Amino acid sequence: MKSSNSHFLIIVFLSLLICVSCKENKTEETIENQTEVVDQNDIERVEPPHWWTGFKSDSLQLMIHHDNIADFSPSISYEGVTIEKVSTGDNSNNYLFIDLDISKASSGKFNIKFENENAKTLVATYELKERLRPSEDYVGFNSSDAIYLITPDRFANGNVANDSPSGIEGQPELLERTVDRTNSYARHGGDISGVIQHIDYIKNLGFTAIWPQPLLTNDMQQGSYHGYAITDLYQIDPRFGTNEEYQLLSKKLQENGMKLIMDQVANHCGLYHWWMKDLPFKDWLNLQQNFEENRENWGNSFTTYSNHRRTTNQDIYASEADRKGNNQGWFVATMPDLNQRNPFMARYIIQNSIWWIETAQLGGIRQDTYPYPDKQFMSDWAGAIMTEYPNFSIVGEEWSYNPLLIGYWQEGAKNNDGYDSNLKSTMDFAMQQKVVEAIKEEESWDKGLVKIYEGLANDFHYANPKDIMIFEGNHDMSRIFTQMDGDVTNTKMAMATYAVMPRIIQMYYGTEILMDDFEIPGDHGLIRTDFPGGWQGDTVNAFTGEGLTEDQKDMQAFITKLFNFRKNSKAIHDGKTIHFAPFVGTYFLYRTLGDETVVLILNKNEKPITIDLNYQSEMGLKGKTLTNVITGESQLWGDVMELKEKGVTLLTTKMN
Amino acid sequence: MKSSNSHFLIIVFLSLLICVSCKENKTEETIENQTEVVDQNDIERVEPPHWWTGFKSDSLQLMIHHDNIADFSPSISYEGVTIEKVSTGDNSNNYLFIDLDISKASSGKFNIKFENENAKTLVATYELKERLRPSEDYVGFNSSDAIYLITPDRFANGNVANDSPSGIEGQPELLERTVDRTNSYARHGGDISGVIQHIDYIKNLGFTAIWPQPLLTNDMQQGSYHGYAITDLYQIDPRFGTNEEYQLLSKKLQENGMKLIMDQVANHCGLYHWWMKDLPFKDWLNLQQNFEENRENWGNSFTTYSNHRRTTNQDIYASEADRKGNNQGWFVATMPDLNQRNPFMARYIIQNSIWWIETAQLGGIRQDTYPYPDKQFMSDWAGAIMTEYPNFSIVGEEWSYNPLLIGYWQEGAKNNDGYDSNLKSTMDFAMQQKVVEAIKEEESWDKGLVKIYEGLANDFHYANPKDIMIFEGNHDMSRIFTQMDGDVTNTKMAMATYAVMPRIIQMYYGTEILMDDFEIPGDHGLIRTDFPGGWQGDTVNAFTGEGLTEDQKDMQAFITKLFNFRKNSKAIHDGKTIHFAPFVGTYFLYRTLGDETVVLILNKNEKPITIDLNYQSEMGLKGKTLTNVITGESQLWGDVMELKEKGVTLLTTKMN
Repeated sequence: MKSSNSHFLIIVFLSLLICVSCKENKTEETIENQTEVVDQNDIERVEPPHWWTGFKSDSLQLMIHHDNIADFSPSISYEGVTIEKVSTGDNSNNYLFIDLDISKASSGKFNIKFENENAKTLVATYELKERLRPSEDYVGFNSSDAIYLITPDRFANGNVANDSPSGIEGQPELLERTVDRTNSYARHGGDISGVIQHIDYIKNLGFTAIWPQPLLTNDMQQGSYHGYAITDLYQIDPRFGTNEEYQLLSKKLQENGMKLIMDQVANHCGLYHWWMKDLPFKDWLNLQQNFEENRENWGNSFTTYSNHRRTTNQDIYASEADRKGNNQGWFVATMPDLNQRNPFMARYIIQNSIWWIETAQLGGIRQDTYPYPDKQFMSDWAGAIMTEYPNFSIVGEEWSYNPLLIGYWQEGAKNNDGYDSNLKSTMDFAMQQKVVEAIKEEESWDKGLVKIYEGLANDFHYANPKDIMIFEGNHDMSRIFTQMDGDVTNTKMAMATYAVMPRIIQMYYGTEILMDDFEIPGDHGLIRTDFPGGWQGDTVNAFTGEGLTEDQKDMQAFITKLFNFRKNSKAIHDGKTIHFAPFVGTYFLYRTLGDETVVLILNKNEKPITIDLNYQSEMGLKGKTLTNVITGESQLWGDVMELKEKGVTLLTTKMN
Repeated sequence: MKSSNSHFLIIVFLSLLICVSCKENKTEETIENQTEVVDQNDIERVEPPHWWTGFKSDSLQLMIHHDNIADFSPSISYEGVTIEKVSTGDNSNNYLFIDLDISKASSGKFNIKFENENAKTLVATYELKERLRPSEDYVGFNSSDAIYLITPDRFANGNVANDSPSGIEGQPELLERTVDRTNSYARHGGDISGVIQHIDYIKNLGFTAIWPQPLLTNDMQQGSYHGYAITDLYQIDPRFGTNEEYQLLSKKLQENGMKLIMDQVANHCGLYHWWMKDLPFKDWLNLQQNFEENRENWGNSFTTYSNHRRTTNQDIYASEADRKGNNQGWFVATMPDLNQRNPFMARYIIQNSIWWIETAQLGGIRQDTYPYPDKQFMSDWAGAIMTEYPNFSIVGEEWSYNPLLIGYWQEGAKNNDGYDSNLKSTMDFAMQQKVVEAIKEEESWDKGLVKIYEGLANDFHYANPKDIMIFEGNHDMSRIFTQMDGDVTNTKMAMATYAVMPRIIQMYYGTEILMDDFEIPGDHGLIRTDFPGGWQGDTVNAFTGEGLTEDQKDMQAFITKLFNFRKNSKAIHDGKTIHFAPFVGTYFLYRTLGDETVVLILNKNEKPITIDLNYQSEMGLKGKTLTNVITGESQLWGDVMELKEKGVTLLTTKMN
């Protein structure tokens, strides 16, 4: 099966023809089916498991998985629901894809009847629920937000009962069921319950949103704790909790004025995903034939890996071979590469995303490995979501230090190829790196603080710089304290710079207590160390402060002041940005809105220095009194400023 | 005097009113002035010294410089020429600016009469010439061209008689009149005549255009050999030759199918420019007041230098102070910064450029220090030229490794601020650097050849990549052979890469004989070493090959083959570009057009290696016979290719 725009149009047209006969059937049976439906489920799997009325999109595509279901014909008798089209896979007799028009349906339950040539009948009860909130109320993260990124297995074990759960119905057995905190690549037992118990802690730090790494089932043989090898796209991993607990997390966050961001993966699934034993189409996966031929010995075939040459997405000179190599190669051997050019796969992923937004009342999506899936699909996917939820936010991960690529993926970019991602936010790996270099390097004409100055100067290229996401670190890179060689002052300078620049900001859990990976820099298991206090019996408890070093307490207090200030600073959220080229080892960055001016001063001089402020007179601060956000002290803005030692000074005209 | 758009409109409106009375005057005097004009010149300086009829622009602005000329009223009686407006400066009584409408004029001479209140009369005969060629015939350099950059003082001393010329009429005395070849910052005697004598040499190397550094008068105290401190914008420096010799150079080049590119400087002039003693306006220069106050001790005042923070041109966060600091600060103390926001200055520069295009039948302009003058002016300047000469080319110099800035300056860029430079070409310092790094660095995931691959991938951002100018070196940077640590193989790899990529290419004189600056890397005087054989008595003569080392002869032959091939390769000029991500230390770059395919292969393996070519089967070369451009050998394209040693292989399906 090949997908193309023209094919798609033909399919839509045929669907309309089929629709006519469907409607006739419906009329005959209408009365019978308005009676109460008794739940019945003879079918192994119907996905999405339920849906809602009231979306802008009229249609819904159900995936039915059941032994020889392709031999059955489905019928539905429910007012407002019509079967537009029924499709089968070309690689398995156990799938049906049913396209429904639900535009005129009211919420309620109805039965889907399946009948084969031998008059055998199967029934699945399906529900269309009422939506809780209008689409416009789903407000995504934006530059007023500070996001706390969590590796859920490593944050807090709130419920020891789910550490070694039994299998889930309809799933392969759970392959990794043992908690082993001595192994940094094994499960440690952290869970949703643990996050819920510490919402207060995160809120008190000044954060307004959390982004937990994927919580969906990763029923993998090993290393499943990170969450990116999903084996069931509709089910929270039982070691993290339940779908209901995930909903509760969202509810509790909302009660605290906070947002839940879901980490989603459109590029791949886990090797033990339930459909891997019974793939519906010959092109359900990329390089599926290679996989089928080597199924038993998978992972030994070199050519099926992605070449990871992500520039092929933009490169007008890229060879076809390289382009396919990036997009169709597998990320790793244990993560089958989904083929989003198969329209049923595309539909499955889009509906799955919307299902979770609606189910968990999400405040945003973080999309993993953004430059690996089919690029046009990613635009369609984000477009479908943003059409339903106009105020929502999605951030895509491309690990690139190249502003051209960061800019390319953001909605509104004036790309020469006309591509529009529909993606509100992209990740600013470039500025993350520039800030670290700027602070660590010795000052010279083109090194040191000028890297922040020239890095931010690149913002002229972005469609919307303040919707780009900056971060000090994440689960894939060395801890900022390690990047800063264990220098607390440097780490504070970096954190304040990230927090004040015109961006959405994200911080990785534990940065507030100087978590590090000095032992094996860059080691994933070590970066994702257990948060102290998250486990019963921990001798150090960062939630209470017990056992923290003075440096850790100091940083925790610094982060708390910084992010609580940022939380209420409209100048940081939406203000104008003005900065001055670095001079004598200092850099001044201003954010202003109305009567609020915030001044970030980075000073790399170890010895006291006096700065002539008259060069910056255009900022109009002379004679005004400003408050130091961290110390609370006041100071008058005069002709000069004394900076006593290396470090960051954050001043505001309006302490909130 | 301050310039702004609204002021400008008012001036235009007033001009129209004045125009009415002018026309009345003209009618009365028409008959008298159709008689033959006898040349007379009572005026010190009229610029431009002559002009042409037949331009698209209707108007011409004359700058008259003469003692107390502001007390005089000019009049012209010549059919089709009307005085639209007469202006004086606010800083000197010795200037008149006369705006003429010449749209209906035929070519010919006429007198401009100046009369003061005391009925004193002065006369200047002015000529409107007929244009030699229609505007469309001025075809600028493009991707089919290879440009040979010359430092004229250092290339060849064709005329020893002009080594120590006497002063020029109306100019300050020549301050640097001695040739001293032992001093690398003194004049060495190279001249236009020397270039003319060696056009054959340059042509035989395979070049199609030359760009000599500025040849206009630089009547400076020291270091004037480089040409960028111009003291008379209408006069060739007598140590280089005459305006007529410059015209002859252009003519000889044209006879050889070659183009002359003029190096122009809109940002600044030399400190001893004739107008520096008598500035017409209070804002003729940037920071003019600082200059006037320190005139006698100029160069000691720190604040008047440019901050060189060129990103302020784009940076949406740049402070006003920094922006002015870049654009209005002086490049160096001996180069007064011209204020192009003064409309008379703007007009002067634009007319000067057009005068030289027309006078010297130019094939392009290279504009110095592009990000330093007023940015809107630079767009107006290029726009005015391109309006007159739609097929012309201008390349602007911004020394930046940032593709965002390189792209910003090119015509057609989709800039968020709406800026359009009208500039056909920009300089690719980024790719110059990437190629050097790519070849020198040890191969790894993100180092080595991948820098060429990802560097070229950035082309997706450019409005027109093949109109961007690549170069291996220039007069400001270390010689490529020095950059390559004296490795001939590496130097050849770089040269071939530059020559094949989709760009206009420029090479600095002497690269073909491995000129270097090892002794003091980066030293300007050393980089601009005398070309051997350019001076009588030179023991080595690169023009004849006499005394060259084997390596030098080898490189000269390599360059000759490379550039003569490029000269006729339409695939390189205009072909499609396709490349493959580096693998096992090799990189393949293809250029294709019709039946011509050119393959550049960079191989960094010291030991023999066999390459599987099937991955590149989409190029359709299997079974074809290709010719090695350098060795002339043929080879069949099969399933594999043996690469015996490190180096570049350049193959073509169509040896020309």
